[in-house]
Formats: sequence, C-alpha cells, structure tokens
Amino acid sequence: MRPQDIIAKKRDGHALTKDEIGIFIGGVCDGAWADYQISALVMAMFINGLNDEEQNILTQSMLHSGDTIDLADIDRPKADKHSTGGVGDKTSLIIAPLAAACGLAVPMISGRGLGHTGGTLDKLESIPGYNVRLTLDELKQTIKACGFAMAGQTDRLVPADKKLYAMRDATATVPYIPLIVASIMSKKLAENLDALALDVKTGTGAFMNEFEDAKRLAEAMCQTGNACGVKTQAVISDMNQPLGKYVGNSLEVYECLKIMRNEHDDIMLPTRELSIDLTARMLTLTGFCKDIETAKMLCEQKLSEGAPLESFRANIELQHGDVRVIDNPETLLNGSLKEIAVTAAGSGFINGIDSLAIGEAICEIGGGRTKAEDAVDHAVGYLSAKQIGDAVREGEELGVIFCRTREQADSVFAKLQTAYRITDESTTKPELIKYVV
Amino acid sequence: MRPQDIIAKKRDGHALTKDEIGIFIGGVCDGAWADYQISALVMAMFINGLNDEEQNILTQSMLHSGDTIDLADIDRPKADKHSTGGVGDKTSLIIAPLAAACGLAVPMISGRGLGHTGGTLDKLESIPGYNVRLTLDELKQTIKACGFAMAGQTDRLVPADKKLYAMRDATATVPYIPLIVASIMSKKLAENLDALALDVKTGTGAFMNEFEDAKRLAEAMCQTGNACGVKTQAVISDMNQPLGKYVGNSLEVYECLKIMRNEHDDIMLPTRELSIDLTARMLTLTGFCKDIETAKMLCEQKLSEGAPLESFRANIELQHGDVRVIDNPETLLNGSLKEIAVTAAGSGFINGIDSLAIGEAICEIGGGRTKAEDAVDHAVGYLSAKQIGDAVREGEELGVIFCRTREQADSVFAKLQTAYRITDESTTKPELIKYVV
Repeated sequence: MRPQDIIAKKRDGHALTKDEIGIFIGGVCDGAWADYQISALVMAMFINGLNDEEQNILTQSMLHSGDTIDLADIDRPKADKHSTGGVGDKTSLIIAPLAAACGLAVPMISGRGLGHTGGTLDKLESIPGYNVRLTLDELKQTIKACGFAMAGQTDRLVPADKKLYAMRDATATVPYIPLIVASIMSKKLAENLDALALDVKTGTGAFMNEFEDAKRLAEAMCQTGNACGVKTQAVISDMNQPLGKYVGNSLEVYECLKIMRNEHDDIMLPTRELSIDLTARMLTLTGFCKDIETAKMLCEQKLSEGAPLESFRANIELQHGDVRVIDNPETLLNGSLKEIAVTAAGSGFINGIDSLAIGEAICEIGGGRTKAEDAVDHAVGYLSAKQIGDAVREGEELGVIFCRTREQADSVFAKLQTAYRITDESTTKPELIKYVV
Repeated sequence: MRPQDIIAKKRDGHALTKDEIGIFIGGVCDGAWADYQISALVMAMFINGLNDEEQNILTQSMLHSGDTIDLADIDRPKADKHSTGGVGDKTSLIIAPLAAACGLAVPMISGRGLGHTGGTLDKLESIPGYNVRLTLDELKQTIKACGFAMAGQTDRLVPADKKLYAMRDATATVPYIPLIVASIMSKKLAENLDALALDVKTGTGAFMNEFEDAKRLAEAMCQTGNACGVKTQAVISDMNQPLGKYVGNSLEVYECLKIMRNEHDDIMLPTRELSIDLTARMLTLTGFCKDIETAKMLCEQKLSEGAPLESFRANIELQHGDVRVIDNPETLLNGSLKEIAVTAAGSGFINGIDSLAIGEAICEIGGGRTKAEDAVDHAVGYLSAKQIGDAVREGEELGVIFCRTREQADSVFAKLQTAYRITDESTTKPELIKYVV
C-alpha cells in the first residue's frame, strides 16, 4: 500500500486499520515515507481525527518501533509515573526512591526541560557526577540493585516518537490529544509496566490551562494505558502556582532531599503530598497495597524511617553521583549566588499567580532552555514564598530570585512581581488534587 | 510569521491573508519552509478548504514566484487555450497556428504526457528536429515572427508550482479544485494573456469523470482567470471516447496536418470542430471578433485558404523542425509498424467506450509514460474507427493498433476490445461540447 493511499484515506475522514498505521510507523522509522508524507498524514489525523481504537493502535505501533525495556526477571511489580509538566514539578525525585523503598521496581525514563517547564534529567544532573545516560542493560542492573533508575530516552526506545515529535513541533500538529497520548504512552508503555500513575497538570503553568482539557487528556491516556494492559490512573493536579517551595534544578533537588530527610517546611508540603499520592496510586494499581489509604500509610511510614533517602543514596552511587548530597543537601546551594527579593507592589490577598511567567523568568536567567540544544545553569532559580490565598503587605517578600548577577534579577524582576495578582478580596487556596480519573 | 503559525491558522479552518499566502509561496521557493511544513499546510488547505479569494491570491502568488512572459511589445491580442487532458486530445496543434493565422499572438507553454493522456510537447517532437526547449527570449522572438510558439515550462516560470505539484502527487493532495486551479492558472497567467479559452474534459478518459465535477472546475478556473484580469471562458467537452481519429504522438500530428490541409475524413471532424470552437472563443474574448459566429467564420475561411498550415510551416522552421511534414504528412507514418485490427466481439451498437483503457493501452506499448522520466515511442498508437452510437457486427474493425511487435498488440488486444461496450440498444452520439461557462 502506497503512502498516498493511506494518506488519502485519512484525508477523506476514514479510520485507518492496524495494518495501515503499522505501515505508516514502519515508514517513519525506515525512511520509506518521506518527511512531507509523514506530516501530511499527521495533519490529516489532526483535522479529521483518530478514534480510540486508532489512538491505541498508533500507541502500540510506536511503542514497538524500537526496543522495549524487559524487566521480566525482576521480581517486583513494575510501576512508573508521568507528569505533563509544570513549574517546580519535582515529584519524580521523591516518587522513584519512595516507590522503590516500598517494594516496587521503577524504570523511570525522563526528559529534559524545555521552555517554562523543568525536566527530571536536568534536576538530577545538579548532583555532581550523576549519570543519566544509561544503556538499557545499565538501567536494568540499576533497578535490580536499588529498585529504581532514572535515565534519558535512548535512540532505540520508541524511535518513531523522536521523529514525529520534532516534525509535529514544526507543523502545528502538537496540540491534539490522540497524538499527545500516543507520544507519551508509547514511551511509558515501552517500559513494560504493570501500573502507571499520571499527573495531568492544569492551570497557569500547565500545557492544559483549562480543567476540561486536562480531564480529556487524562481520560484519553487512561483509556489507552488500560487498553494496552497497563493499569493506569490519572490525577489532575493544580498548576496555578509553582509546586512547593523552589523552582530551579539544584533547588528542587534540595527541596526533595529536605522532604526525604523530614526536614521540610510548610511551603514544601504540597510537593510531599502530591508525591505520596502518586506513589500510593502506583502501589494500589499494582496490587501491592489493597487500597489508597493503606498505601499512603506505607509511604508515610517509609518516609519517617528514612527508607527513600537510603534508596536514593544507593541509586546515586550506582549512577555515579556524589552521595554527599544525601547527608548534606546544603552542598546543592551555591553560596556565591545573589539572592534578590521580589516584593509585593501592593497589599491585599494573592488571588492568582502566573506560573508560566515564573517558569519563563527562571528560563530567561539560564535555569531552563528555549531550544533543545541550550545549556542549563543548574544553580539559578526561585524561592516561591507566598501562595494563592496568602495575605501580603506592600513591600513584603513574594519570593527570592537566586541568580548570578544583579542584571539577571533586574531583567526578570517586573515579570515576577506582576506574576502575582493581588486584590482586596480574600480567596481560598486551590485544591492540590482536583480530580482523579 | 513562523510557518507553524500560518499552518495552525488553516488547520483551525481560518482564511489566510494575502501576506500569509505570500510568505508560504515565498518559503516554498527560497527553501525557508521545510518540505514537511509545505505538505502539512497543503493538507490543511485540502481538508479545510480555500475560498475564492484565497484561491485567487494563491494563484497570483504562484504566478509571481518566478519570471513571467512579457509580450508587451507584440502588437497583437495575446490568447491561449488550456485543456485538462484526454485521449487523442490534439487540438493545440491546430489552435495555435489557426489563432496566429487569424491575427492573435499565442504563447503556448505546454506539458508532456503522463499516464493515459498525451502531451503537446511529445506530439511536437514527432516532427524531426522540432525544439520545444525555448528560452523566454526565443519564445518571444518566435511569436513575433510567426504569431505563436510552443514550448515547455522553464525552471524560471512559476517555480512554486513545480515543487508543490511533485509534493501533492506524493501526499494525496492533487484532487482539490482550488489547488488544481492555482496550479493550472498560475502557469497560464504567467503568459500575460488578454484571453484564455479552457477545454475541461469530462468522461471516461478525463480526470473529471463526472460532468458536475468538470463544471465546478471550469467555473473555478473562469472565476480566477477573470478576477486576475484575463478574460476567461471554458467549454466542457466530451471525453467519453477518444477525440477524433488517432491516439499516439506522430499519428495525432498527422491528423492535425490532414485537417489543416483540408484532407480530413469524417472521423477527424470532432478534432476540427473543437479546435475551431476554442480558437473562436480566443478571438471573441480578446475582442478581435465581435461574436462567436463571426469568429468561427473567420476560422473556416483561414482553414480553407490554408493559412494555418503556412503559420505552422513558419513555426516549424523557426523551432528547427523538419518542414517537409507540412507538404507530406505521410512522412510521419512509420511504414515498418505492424497494424493490427481490434475487432468487435459481438454485434450491436457501441454504447460506451472506456477511453481511459485506450489511453492506458497506448501508454503500455510505449506511446506514453507511466513515470515522468520514461522515454516515449512517438510512432506507436491507435486508430479509433468506431464511435459511440455506431452499429457494429461481430468481427468488424473497431480500431487499429500501430505497434512495433505482434507481442505488443497481443498484450493490449483484450483491453482494447473490452473498452467497447456493445449492446442491443441503439444510442445517440454524445454532444462534443456539453456546456459553456
């Protein structure tokens, strides 16, 4: 079947068969389809739609386009979590060691930050020496030894996604749920999981600003995950303000270690709460715990015993990082940075926070990337001192910029200050977990 | 404005502005748009549509993507005709010299045959030495000297179309009227015409099988032509049987010369009639003649005087062809060819002819191309002896295959024989000109 025959079928609004989608993904990988044929079909999919079955077939075809992670000889339930990305979203660094400490195997393939959102790999590389470039065999050996591993995508895992994603970005075909689902889920399903917990963010710092869009995406991912034999659940969590206390690579690792060391303050509590919730879902979905309450109690117990901290210590050693951060997280804080307060321009209540602006500001001073090939300054970042619902007085500290130069702070000060909407009316704090699919 | 922003706009069903379409066509030509971005936008155009204004802007943008033909210093009305292609469709070879003989200037840029349809350039190259590769300056000098020139597309005329067309063929985006209109009309409008007569074919051997589709295309081309300042009219002509007597390059030139020499037989009459009709429209649209009847009388008069034959003689000389074909068209017939009769399998009336099958059969024995880079055997072809409405007896000759070997004839005999639907009921001959837009 020629590419143009398959393209014509979707162009005319017909559903594609398993064979046709297989030919397409095969052609993407082996070069039998020209780039312009791929993008023409993707545009036809975007406009004319993919039904649930096509979405599932596309996901499966993509996941089988390369190697998958075979953890069959690891005698633990396999689970992972995926987040759609946000500002200060650092839960992976707690979830992986916590889930491992509870008894799961976690093959966590993560990404890098882009735009206003951070990436787990960048955060991990704040730990001196930490190696995120593992072969599939190294990944497996690390999981065997300490219960989890955190690494980047390899060229051999879901190669179809790499090519499709780059093209979608340049052809305005990113924001379509079935294509998003196939991209995310093919990579997660290539981990051969028993269970997957999804954290779909909604709000000013999320890709899905609107709750209803987030809900649709969450439902679509759960449908595909479960149809493909992986027990999948999604929480829709709030991203109308940065999650927890810090934004920025080193600072976020610091926050996670403080939580795992039980040395956290109140501003860090949402990070802790969301990490426990998602881990508890992984424990429940795998059948490891009988219900979510039991699972949360197990998480609390393991945290209070310091078990996740020891899992992380073992992992850092195995992935060649400097384990001194475990006992002394303060080594992650760069004492030579300037700390510049962002102050409230007026008095009242914080009624809204533009998390996108905060994420972009940190990106602009070097803490993130605007292009995939940019370098990242792991040290810089932001301390988010006030949350929605807090009362503030004019001149009071809203947050603190951690930066290299005075000029950097000046360049983003106004953006950060105006990210806070301060009004006379009080408001309630947003719920952290808004919905569970 | 980034390509993806323009793509997103059409993806979401909005009309594009003149600037946006200009950026697109500019990007097609200068490489600023990647192939996959071009095809994504073209697919979005195909599915979500282009309105009349966008169709006209796209045509204009494409026509200005390269050089145009400047005939300002030729003191004759400029006119041309374009046909959507068919089997035995040879009228250009009469229209150009006839219109020139009447007093028009005809800058006829033509194409080559592909699939079941022939191309004017291939037919002309049946004349030994005839050169269809003219520079724009040579084209102009030839028109100045003899009233018309016939040549191929140059790389500098409408370069956007060349790139777009190749891509549309591979991405299932050919059969959409606004894109067809922009492709055809940009090339014709680059000739800087005063008037254009269009011959839109409908029937078994045409790209538009259905009359209503042909009518829509004809109306769309006329809308764009007139909106762009070129007086444009279209006839919808019958392609339910090969036009005239012969199919095949040399044979078709032979038929045209016989008509210009007033030595034609009855089977050639439709070729003559359609050529006169289209030429008369060119004469009327330019204002050269006051109405179609006067124009047709002028054509008849010029033909009876042999004026078009002399125009053609002058043209062949200027384009370096062998002028002996003018006085002795029989030199175009290759005496060494085998002539194999196709006979009727039964008795009755011819109720239908599959012209596509006849075109394909001639292509298969070498008279046409399946790929653009194929060579063509100018000598082979077909004599169409019977038309729709004719009564035939079993074993009677339906046509004659002109071929190199007996095997060639055997390989297409059944296809040709079954191209004729013979039934007991008599039927009327189809009207040659079905509609005028």
